[in-house]
Amino acid sequence: MAQNGSGDRVEKGIAGEDEDVQDPNQKDLRHKEEDISVERLFLSREVPPWRYQLTIRALVVSLLLSVLFSFIVMKLNLTTGIIPSLNVSAGLLGFFFVKTWTKFLDKSGMLKQPFTRQENTVIQTCVVASSGIAFSGGFGSYLFGMSERIARLSSDKNDFKNPSLGWIIGFLFVVSFLGLFSVVPLRKIMIIDFKLTYPSGTATAHLINSFHTPEGAKLAKKQVRTLGKFFTLSFLWGFFQWFYTAGDDCGFQAFPSLGLKAHKYKFYFDFSTIYVGVGMICPYIINVSVLLGGILSWGIMWPLIERKEGQWYPADLPDSSLSGLQGYKVFVAIAMILGDGLYNFIKVLSYTLIGMYNQVRERQRENELPVADQNSSRTSQLSYDDQRRTQHFLKDQIPSYYAIGGYVAIAAVSVATLPHIFHQLKWYYILVIYFLAPTLAFCNAYGAGLTDWSLASTYGKLAIFTIGAWAGASHGGVLAGLAACGVMMNIVSTASDLMQDFKTGYLTLSSPRSMFVSQIIGTIMGCVISPCVFWIFYKAFDDLGSPKSEYPAPYAIVYRNMAKLGVEGVSSLPKECLLLCYIFFGSAVLINLIKDLMGKRGWFIPLPMAMAIPFYIGPYFAIDMCVGSLILYVWERMNKAKADAFAPAVASGLICGDGIWTLPASILALAGVKPPICMKFLSRATNARVDAFLGS
Amino acid sequence: MAQNGSGDRVEKGIAGEDEDVQDPNQKDLRHKEEDISVERLFLSREVPPWRYQLTIRALVVSLLLSVLFSFIVMKLNLTTGIIPSLNVSAGLLGFFFVKTWTKFLDKSGMLKQPFTRQENTVIQTCVVASSGIAFSGGFGSYLFGMSERIARLSSDKNDFKNPSLGWIIGFLFVVSFLGLFSVVPLRKIMIIDFKLTYPSGTATAHLINSFHTPEGAKLAKKQVRTLGKFFTLSFLWGFFQWFYTAGDDCGFQAFPSLGLKAHKYKFYFDFSTIYVGVGMICPYIINVSVLLGGILSWGIMWPLIERKEGQWYPADLPDSSLSGLQGYKVFVAIAMILGDGLYNFIKVLSYTLIGMYNQVRERQRENELPVADQNSSRTSQLSYDDQRRTQHFLKDQIPSYYAIGGYVAIAAVSVATLPHIFHQLKWYYILVIYFLAPTLAFCNAYGAGLTDWSLASTYGKLAIFTIGAWAGASHGGVLAGLAACGVMMNIVSTASDLMQDFKTGYLTLSSPRSMFVSQIIGTIMGCVISPCVFWIFYKAFDDLGSPKSEYPAPYAIVYRNMAKLGVEGVSSLPKECLLLCYIFFGSAVLINLIKDLMGKRGWFIPLPMAMAIPFYIGPYFAIDMCVGSLILYVWERMNKAKADAFAPAVASGLICGDGIWTLPASILALAGVKPPICMKFLSRATNARVDAFLGS
Repeated sequence: MAQNGSGDRVEKGIAGEDEDVQDPNQKDLRHKEEDISVERLFLSREVPPWRYQLTIRALVVSLLLSVLFSFIVMKLNLTTGIIPSLNVSAGLLGFFFVKTWTKFLDKSGMLKQPFTRQENTVIQTCVVASSGIAFSGGFGSYLFGMSERIARLSSDKNDFKNPSLGWIIGFLFVVSFLGLFSVVPLRKIMIIDFKLTYPSGTATAHLINSFHTPEGAKLAKKQVRTLGKFFTLSFLWGFFQWFYTAGDDCGFQAFPSLGLKAHKYKFYFDFSTIYVGVGMICPYIINVSVLLGGILSWGIMWPLIERKEGQWYPADLPDSSLSGLQGYKVFVAIAMILGDGLYNFIKVLSYTLIGMYNQVRERQRENELPVADQNSSRTSQLSYDDQRRTQHFLKDQIPSYYAIGGYVAIAAVSVATLPHIFHQLKWYYILVIYFLAPTLAFCNAYGAGLTDWSLASTYGKLAIFTIGAWAGASHGGVLAGLAACGVMMNIVSTASDLMQDFKTGYLTLSSPRSMFVSQIIGTIMGCVISPCVFWIFYKAFDDLGSPKSEYPAPYAIVYRNMAKLGVEGVSSLPKECLLLCYIFFGSAVLINLIKDLMGKRGWFIPLPMAMAIPFYIGPYFAIDMCVGSLILYVWERMNKAKADAFAPAVASGLICGDGIWTLPASILALAGVKPPICMKFLSRATNARVDAFLGS
Repeated sequence: MAQNGSGDRVEKGIAGEDEDVQDPNQKDLRHKEEDISVERLFLSREVPPWRYQLTIRALVVSLLLSVLFSFIVMKLNLTTGIIPSLNVSAGLLGFFFVKTWTKFLDKSGMLKQPFTRQENTVIQTCVVASSGIAFSGGFGSYLFGMSERIARLSSDKNDFKNPSLGWIIGFLFVVSFLGLFSVVPLRKIMIIDFKLTYPSGTATAHLINSFHTPEGAKLAKKQVRTLGKFFTLSFLWGFFQWFYTAGDDCGFQAFPSLGLKAHKYKFYFDFSTIYVGVGMICPYIINVSVLLGGILSWGIMWPLIERKEGQWYPADLPDSSLSGLQGYKVFVAIAMILGDGLYNFIKVLSYTLIGMYNQVRERQRENELPVADQNSSRTSQLSYDDQRRTQHFLKDQIPSYYAIGGYVAIAAVSVATLPHIFHQLKWYYILVIYFLAPTLAFCNAYGAGLTDWSLASTYGKLAIFTIGAWAGASHGGVLAGLAACGVMMNIVSTASDLMQDFKTGYLTLSSPRSMFVSQIIGTIMGCVISPCVFWIFYKAFDDLGSPKSEYPAPYAIVYRNMAKLGVEGVSSLPKECLLLCYIFFGSAVLINLIKDLMGKRGWFIPLPMAMAIPFYIGPYFAIDMCVGSLILYVWERMNKAKADAFAPAVASGLICGDGIWTLPASILALAGVKPPICMKFLSRATNARVDAFLGS
């Protein structure tokens, strides 16, 4: 559950920087925007017809960026599962590539069509859709959780399905388009009638709009240069680090920057620029929460539980056994994630219902007014910007029968093929899912519109438990649950993504039709690129998923064990683990409740979901993120304006550079090229022994 | 020779940044100064009488800074022997301490005497005199070259005198004051009549003057803050590095940042901020020269000579034997240093003679004019600033009989005591030295006034060869030569330092009497502090002087072998080594000649003295220095004004922070506290063996 949950929470924090649902700031934002009237600035620029918004160059750039971001998201998936919003980076890079290209053409006199913000939106949409698959494809969670490697970690002998390019691509193709078709008819209701905020989509639109004003373009150019500089630095740093990693426990990841004892409990700075960048993008409270969770678990709880070895759990277990200390790490994290997920599921669902109820009631009241009044009240309410945007948004229609027809057709194919991929997943399970999915997709899209919070992973966890229990242990319930989770997550996740993009399109006068097509093309790209990228990681790093490796893929084992929990119950947990789980489940709910009750005054209360992530993998990445926070904080203190303008670019550069370094790194690993040097850290006593050994 | 030579060359570069003697720029400088009239700015400030320039607070601050700079100079002495000018740091820190103190008193209403620039000059003079002893005391060269550790490296069994606090302090006291007394009667001739430039002294005076103008004080405050920031960073970095140095070949000094093979030949960045700072202060050409020398020696020559093992020299020698590869390193470096030293000795001496001849002739011509004309021509030539400065400079006299009496008295004590310290040094050797010394001291002070280049170490080398040969091998010629070198170096070095200080005093309206007293107090401090600081290093680091240690003290072995060469001749050199020595001696002379002939156009020609330093110890510190250069270059490209204003402060901070870290480091070593962790670098193959060993 947590991967998506935490990922989304992060995205939420970035877009709105407010933790409260229905925050007054959001209205302020809309007001401000109307005051200035963005669209009057753009009045001289012609809006191209929808087919011309979908240029070939835009799709080429999208393809490039999709590969780039798939690598980044995959690396994040497989290291911690924390995925910050990459919208700003995608926006900047997309702008950079097309702008460079059109400038080049312009100079050689061959430019036929200028670079418009609609085209920019198309790129953004395509890239977000494509790299979204890298996340919702579950390569770090449910899908990899099915593999033999993770099954062995959970001491399961038989219940596994190893990843293979063929079935993954097939699976993604049959499940990733349903979400799009299920909500596309609702776009007018969500965007125009309900006027939902979609903070991420709105922020992206502002970014794109700003790029295409003259001053904005100038700033964007500087930002791109900053991004490029830090991209290069971060890439070269990754390259440099590589040389010192011959063997396990070598290199900068083994650097005991806080001492050997602290390193044993995973308190160290691991010099990975990607998480420093993530820390710069994430709000302070997330970074602090992660660190707090790390201190609570690896600083206090695990060392204490370790002392009970032999009492609470047998002393002679292998490190990776879930009946030992590892079990506490996994299940306490699961409890906290489930507590947070359940609380927020109920919260967002109730907000959704209340919001819809209010909307409907208002509509009814309006309908009771005479028609003339209705019209005057409507148009008088609409600002110039809104009028122009609405007009463009309603111009290109996508017929509803087309959407419904598409949904039914794909669902039919899906019901027929999925049981062949996962023979544990019976066709009637799928039928039930597809029957409920459009409602859930709508709920998720609506909730995300209000709160910016996609609950995709929570819906996925629901599917794990319900379908898993339905199938039962004897019929491969674990795999059935994980597969159902994948189906569900893909549907609801793409639905909310699409609606975010429609909002962006609405604010940039892009045609819904070009948005939709771009999303479909992006999804197709993602269905092919993501599995291939995952495949490279899977083949290049043999220890993918092992808790001590560079790529522990923490959510793979968490998801698998959630499925086991749903199917087999809690009997296999070690002693006192269940009690701890109850405590942490309850605390997660309680902390959330207090936070919500305190409103703005509760800014200092940590987020349970973020706290749970280091429980399993350790707090080292939290230290990276806090370093990012610290840099940002100092920068803001020194020069707020500059920090605001350039920190996202610096962070994007750090993230992209380190992320893309994994491409050559995995190619080197695949080619069998091994680093030449080992940077090793030994205690003084061990060093003396080693020196004696090497001397003799 | 090189320690002083290179040290001075560096100082020269900093003060004037011009490599050519009698450069027109120096005249420009004086002109500019007159245009603005600094003294009119200071007209409202009263000049305190000389006794009030010597305040207790100034002496307390001087004592503090003397300890600080003794540590820094000692560290530099014992690592590479490259000592940049620390005038700016001393000026900034002196200003900072007294200013903070007076501000504090001012606020509490207890301030009796404001902080004047004369007081600041007193501090500066005292600190420079005191830390000068840390250099001319020869702790990294002749004095340490006498010790058993270095004797053993040169395969000498008997000829050694181990350092001990008692005799070192005694020795310094009897030789360090002669220089002062020998040139003090000449100050009027040098400063007023000959109007010698003394670029370092002038630069220091400008710095002090600038601190005491309102805008200058503001800038100085900012610079001090920058210095403090980088001081802290550099100190903490030194502290951090310490934790990883349990055992040999551990820590950041063992970091093969350019690969293991390059590290074997000492090509690596050793992360020491002190040399990054030194690189920022030294002119680019010095850093490039050092790097070039490193590439030539460790990159090309030594690897080639290594292949001749068994042909040119026996294969079974220990690494440190001077009959093997080590011999080539030491003697080729000596040849280059001697070539450079000889060339520059002749050059500066001829400039001195020509300059004096011109002065005398001009004086004669003036004397032939009628008296009235003389006066009018004199006063009309003098600017307002010069008039006021001359007036103050001539106010407080130091009687000549006092100076001459002092010289004779100290010389007598010295002749009587020195043979008791070094029984190889007969009393008549000393008498000869003291008979010649005033002339040489005058020559050196005059040469430094013209070129900013103190040839102290060259005079010292002359003493090594002449006295060493006179004593002969059978009568401990090596030790006699080294001791004579010490006597000579101390005399001529303090003489030129004093004259530099008089120039500073002249330009800041400080009384020559307070300058002289301050210099004497500083020398007394230095005679006690420097040996104590050296003693801490000597006791704390057992491997001081060993070529592979953190403190190789390269000039100790170079000086000792120069003495051996003078006494025993060239017969002990390994095969082809003499030929190489001739080539490098000749090249050094030739390169200097070409450089001087090309004048300004020869800016790209490296300095042989700087090239010779890495021959013995390796190019790693050259890489540090080039990193400093690179930082400065990029900074200057980005913001020239800011770089000019703050680069010296940043460099000083880096140097001081790392330098003072050696104090706690050596205390930790003395207390037997050992670092807990070893950061080790192993090749992949070795690492596999170590892992197998540790695993079993």
